[in-house]
Amino acid sequence: MTATSALALLRFDGDRTIGHDLVDPASPVLSALDLAATRGDGVFETISVGHGHPQAFEAHLARFVRSAAKLDLPEPDVDVWRAAVLAVAAVIGPVPEAFVKTVLSRGIEGGSSPTGWAYGAVAPDHTAARTRGVHAILLDRGFRSDAGAAAPWLLVGAKTLSYGINRAAAREAAKRGADDVVFVSTDGLLLEGPTANVVILRDGRLLTPPLDAGILPGTTQADLFDWAPSRGLEPLYQPLRPRDLLDADAAWLLSSVRHAAPINAVDHAPLTMDRELTDAMNDFLSARTA
Amino acid sequence: MTATSALALLRFDGDRTIGHDLVDPASPVLSALDLAATRGDGVFETISVGHGHPQAFEAHLARFVRSAAKLDLPEPDVDVWRAAVLAVAAVIGPVPEAFVKTVLSRGIEGGSSPTGWAYGAVAPDHTAARTRGVHAILLDRGFRSDAGAAAPWLLVGAKTLSYGINRAAAREAAKRGADDVVFVSTDGLLLEGPTANVVILRDGRLLTPPLDAGILPGTTQADLFDWAPSRGLEPLYQPLRPRDLLDADAAWLLSSVRHAAPINAVDHAPLTMDRELTDAMNDFLSARTA
Repeated sequence: MTATSALALLRFDGDRTIGHDLVDPASPVLSALDLAATRGDGVFETISVGHGHPQAFEAHLARFVRSAAKLDLPEPDVDVWRAAVLAVAAVIGPVPEAFVKTVLSRGIEGGSSPTGWAYGAVAPDHTAARTRGVHAILLDRGFRSDAGAAAPWLLVGAKTLSYGINRAAAREAAKRGADDVVFVSTDGLLLEGPTANVVILRDGRLLTPPLDAGILPGTTQADLFDWAPSRGLEPLYQPLRPRDLLDADAAWLLSSVRHAAPINAVDHAPLTMDRELTDAMNDFLSARTA
Repeated sequence: MTATSALALLRFDGDRTIGHDLVDPASPVLSALDLAATRGDGVFETISVGHGHPQAFEAHLARFVRSAAKLDLPEPDVDVWRAAVLAVAAVIGPVPEAFVKTVLSRGIEGGSSPTGWAYGAVAPDHTAARTRGVHAILLDRGFRSDAGAAAPWLLVGAKTLSYGINRAAAREAAKRGADDVVFVSTDGLLLEGPTANVVILRDGRLLTPPLDAGILPGTTQADLFDWAPSRGLEPLYQPLRPRDLLDADAAWLLSSVRHAAPINAVDHAPLTMDRELTDAMNDFLSARTA
């Protein structure tokens, strides 16, 4: 029997992840003392599932482990988490597009175990963003691009539950009549979107910022860079500035569930979209079976 | 009948807060889809309760409303929240020190109402911090002190649930054998602790950074500044630098539940404590009935 959503609670023995239980996704499962809810103290991944196949699955699990390490959380047992994600995906069944979100929290304040869950659902329809594109605004991220290097407590490059700024940036975009955001560092470099990586096309090259420059390395961007040479495109990591985006032949925001959303305007200035390349990107991303 | 902890869930009708229900604090009450738990998307206050009296109560409620506004959350109805806090405090009874935490979350993703709760408990014993003091380290906050002024999406000055950086800073302190943190802006100004304001004593003046300089205005610090003249101390807001802390006659971290914790060292360099003044501060703070 399938459903449009599913939830697995992870079981822990102290710090060890030992299994999962499928539970009713509509029922309350978290304590009001859970540090996920009171302090945003945990990490997550959102994994797209195409026709039942979690995509970039191992890359997501590896990043989940890296994020947990940056927060000094107990190391997630990837085998247990993999099984939980697959169990959730199985309940949803082989629909064209679904997602599973994994969350690892530090647990109940004063307790001795983390909390973890995997929630999955049929994905929203992202056709409009993929075809008509998204209008992005540039917003100051407040940090230098190298802020995290000397200050690991700033958690740059960890996918944490403390996404308040990312959510506020998205609301700022809506207030300005736009759809999404590209953050800019105080030293003038393009960083990333609140939930996406930015990639631009210029002279047959696909460019994205260096992975150590204050951003979260993207699983979708990584897969797209592996695929790029098959389209005759050279993938390249290099520092990018707002001018590079405004002058790009085309540009995209890449994320796990929405896949490649072409940027149709930046701060109300139109940007050319490459419809054919966008379709090819999304065909590739949707067809992934791992 | 009293208990060592209590929980009230707020009831909403759309965006309106309409009441509360006392529930078992040990039972799960939150959905795994609550944006508090998945995105740190909400705001909170922690209110000390002395002998049954919530302290700086109206200041906390007012800041809760301001924080909510900064996050474009529905305005909390302070009368309903006040009643919920008092109900929780009543269950705990007139113990010398307790606290009630109020949390307003954006609610379940895709839903139409916020989520809110008030959790209270008997306070931990902070005698050691108040008498022996705390060893603080200085940590880079990554931001300029004026970052929030032009970039409200950075949520500077809002007490949000996205406290991941504050929690990581506290772990960094522990790794360095210290107890607490004072953040420093990239332009070299003292900001605040992860959960406290910093106040220094110099030549008969109590000094704290300006409230608009990248910090959360402190309710405890405000009460202490109102009290200071009765001790012959002049309270003053002014930009402070690490040198001011290292050269202070004495210094404190002020917070709602721990009250005044004297700083006994900064980055392993001893700092003089003013035991008599500290005791007077904590006597005043503990005795507040509103």
